[in-house]
Amino acid sequence: MKDLQRICVIGLGLLGGSISSAIRQRLPGVSVVGYSHRPATRAKARTLAVAAEIADDLPTAVVGADLIILATPIFTFERYFADINGLIRSDCIVTDVGSTKVLPHRWAAEKLTDGGVYIGSHPIAGSEQRGVEFARDDLFVDARCILTKDRGVRRDAVKALKEFWSALGCFIEMMDPAEHDRVLANVSHLPHVIAAGLVNASDPRDMRSAGKGFLDSTRIASGPANVWTDVLLANTHNLVEGIDRVLAELSAIKHALKAEDRQAIDAFLDGASKKRAALVTYKIKKKELLS
Amino acid sequence: MKDLQRICVIGLGLLGGSISSAIRQRLPGVSVVGYSHRPATRAKARTLAVAAEIADDLPTAVVGADLIILATPIFTFERYFADINGLIRSDCIVTDVGSTKVLPHRWAAEKLTDGGVYIGSHPIAGSEQRGVEFARDDLFVDARCILTKDRGVRRDAVKALKEFWSALGCFIEMMDPAEHDRVLANVSHLPHVIAAGLVNASDPRDMRSAGKGFLDSTRIASGPANVWTDVLLANTHNLVEGIDRVLAELSAIKHALKAEDRQAIDAFLDGASKKRAALVTYKIKKKELLS
Repeated sequence: MKDLQRICVIGLGLLGGSISSAIRQRLPGVSVVGYSHRPATRAKARTLAVAAEIADDLPTAVVGADLIILATPIFTFERYFADINGLIRSDCIVTDVGSTKVLPHRWAAEKLTDGGVYIGSHPIAGSEQRGVEFARDDLFVDARCILTKDRGVRRDAVKALKEFWSALGCFIEMMDPAEHDRVLANVSHLPHVIAAGLVNASDPRDMRSAGKGFLDSTRIASGPANVWTDVLLANTHNLVEGIDRVLAELSAIKHALKAEDRQAIDAFLDGASKKRAALVTYKIKKKELLS
Repeated sequence: MKDLQRICVIGLGLLGGSISSAIRQRLPGVSVVGYSHRPATRAKARTLAVAAEIADDLPTAVVGADLIILATPIFTFERYFADINGLIRSDCIVTDVGSTKVLPHRWAAEKLTDGGVYIGSHPIAGSEQRGVEFARDDLFVDARCILTKDRGVRRDAVKALKEFWSALGCFIEMMDPAEHDRVLANVSHLPHVIAAGLVNASDPRDMRSAGKGFLDSTRIASGPANVWTDVLLANTHNLVEGIDRVLAELSAIKHALKAEDRQAIDAFLDGASKKRAALVTYKIKKKELLS
């Protein structure tokens, strides 16, 4: 990476740890400095050697960096932007791996007043596991990474960030921040809420009989609550719209069931089955699913 | 199988075809006759040789059978019970593989007036695929099979049916029919409705960005609508109760999101995450999931 000689990763959980490890593995000429505000996490990261250098304070971590990556919960970004403002080089690229993008763009515009080029990143990778001990240097291989940018951002910065994620194995897609948050609400944040609602509505005594169907359809609800609380709070408007659509669907099927309306029940199920079959066909065509 | 020399399988879809194939494979001394009301399905079943004998009419299929297994949609059972009444031996065991059990028990009591011993079976196996071409002789290996019986049913009949499903690889659990339907609503039928509702509420244009989370949490919605319409219609009371519980959860999280109530959102997600973690731990302990 010609333009990125020193990269700083803030937050050393599953994502931050995996980014650091992936850089060590795939970009051997680049120096990585990791930082976590928790001493225990820094100690674990040193033991696991996820980065050559682990800084004990934020200024040491960010000074001189060509790229800073925030891999902390979304609602910490505003404070980090404020804290690094003035410490970083004016051409330093600042990005994050948060699951929503509108608020990070707003906070960056408000807080990074002394330079730094903010571009949003959303590598769609991870798992329901958490913590640096689950970090994997191949976590981003074949993952989609969505980049979001404001108008007028320097093209060489966008190019450098694209090259960075590509080097980690991602394929890149550009999106408008607001469009990103709307789409991700529908394909990720809303399903998470629905899965959590289904789990909360369940009776543990019945779970002896739960099979693969229940387990698969609720898997995402196992994600770490603290990370997901931030995601939901950062995307409330789109989520409320999505929940309203699901509520309407469930109210309709409830009334069809009460009325024993076979035609309406069949239309509900057949519509869903056909719609999902089309999705599977599309994903197979795009080679995102095996046939 | 000492007591079951001749077994009749009615309905030759994924389940009926798999049962016939499994008997051929695992109970070589037993004769199997298959029947479907559709000539095209009978022709396909002959080509695939899922049973040694495929009958062209119902009386030929059922006369002299020691065990009759209905593997057709639930709401066809009442008619089949009426049609075979008087044709079958008085000690013939009649069962089914329907996903609900209260209605089959009621219909059997009403229609099998000239003999035949009804016991309900629910082998929890299958997939979102349908049709005899997906039949597999190992479909029931390590599957749970729930049996339901009325009071006073002959114990040797229950024993014979247990031995039959065990021979196909199932482990057996006895349940009361009403309890079966309540529990299965919660662990299977309700998740199916929720998944279908989520798919119906989605915008196909957003699906380009759908990943593993969306695909997994909606997988069960790909099931064949005609089969599932019967399942839902046969379990409306339990389903309406379950949908009401999910509606309450979704309304609560919607209001928490609108109020940006971090504590309530975190409690919703953390509760679900911990509850599902407990379920996964239980399933690993029971060796139903790998650790």
